[in-house]
Amino acid sequence: MMSSGCPFCPPDPDRVFYRGETVFALWDAYPVNPGHALIIPNRHVGSWFEATEEEQAELLQAVSAVRDEIEASRSPDGYNIGINDGFAAGQTVGHLHLHVIPRYEGDVPDPRGGIRWVIPEWAPYWNDE
Amino acid sequence: MMSSGCPFCPPDPDRVFYRGETVFALWDAYPVNPGHALIIPNRHVGSWFEATEEEQAELLQAVSAVRDEIEASRSPDGYNIGINDGFAAGQTVGHLHLHVIPRYEGDVPDPRGGIRWVIPEWAPYWNDE
Repeated sequence: MMSSGCPFCPPDPDRVFYRGETVFALWDAYPVNPGHALIIPNRHVGSWFEATEEEQAELLQAVSAVRDEIEASRSPDGYNIGINDGFAAGQTVGHLHLHVIPRYEGDVPDPRGGIRWVIPEWAPYWNDE
Repeated sequence: MMSSGCPFCPPDPDRVFYRGETVFALWDAYPVNPGHALIIPNRHVGSWFEATEEEQAELLQAVSAVRDEIEASRSPDGYNIGINDGFAAGQTVGHLHLHVIPRYEGDVPDPRGGIRWVIPEWAPYWNDE
């Protein structure tokens, strides 16, 4: 199933570096850090909750393969791994994709909180402790 | 296996609302939004990449059960689902935990990008298009 106008249907073949049974991975076209990758079901499905169990399992299994590919050329100090599910959560491409974002010491002044920063007002809980 | 000083070994029983075979879920003590939950392996393991395949699978399978529990009392418009893996990625508690963050329309002025905001400088790619 494809969806016209979707940047992942089909994806830019020059950016695809991994193909599984039901998912593939590519380099993000607008990386927030070097090595920023996306893992994507072949099928045009919008939400994690609409993916099949097989797709869900393979999306997660692919994380290790994607890390290996990143670490073939880079040495990250950590990873943010996650999904923006729905427009209200910041999803801008309506085809499910799992972000794998390598992190490097010093890439931000203070990394604490990570994905908590989707809500900046409440992210830094350590100020309340 | 427990680790002294870890807030999840054991967790506050009043905040735990789900128990699986190898994982449990609780309400985040410093929620960024109402209904912010964490899914956590029973075993004190620091990283996604150190979790067993069974733990990884159950962490993800639990997302749907956690969503059901959130939606028993709330009506989110989206979800951010993800892991901060490593200090450089913002992990502040050294026991693996998967964030399930419900999102509500209007909770931030512009939700676009979601977890891309771990690196604020490069998050808003739409400014480059």
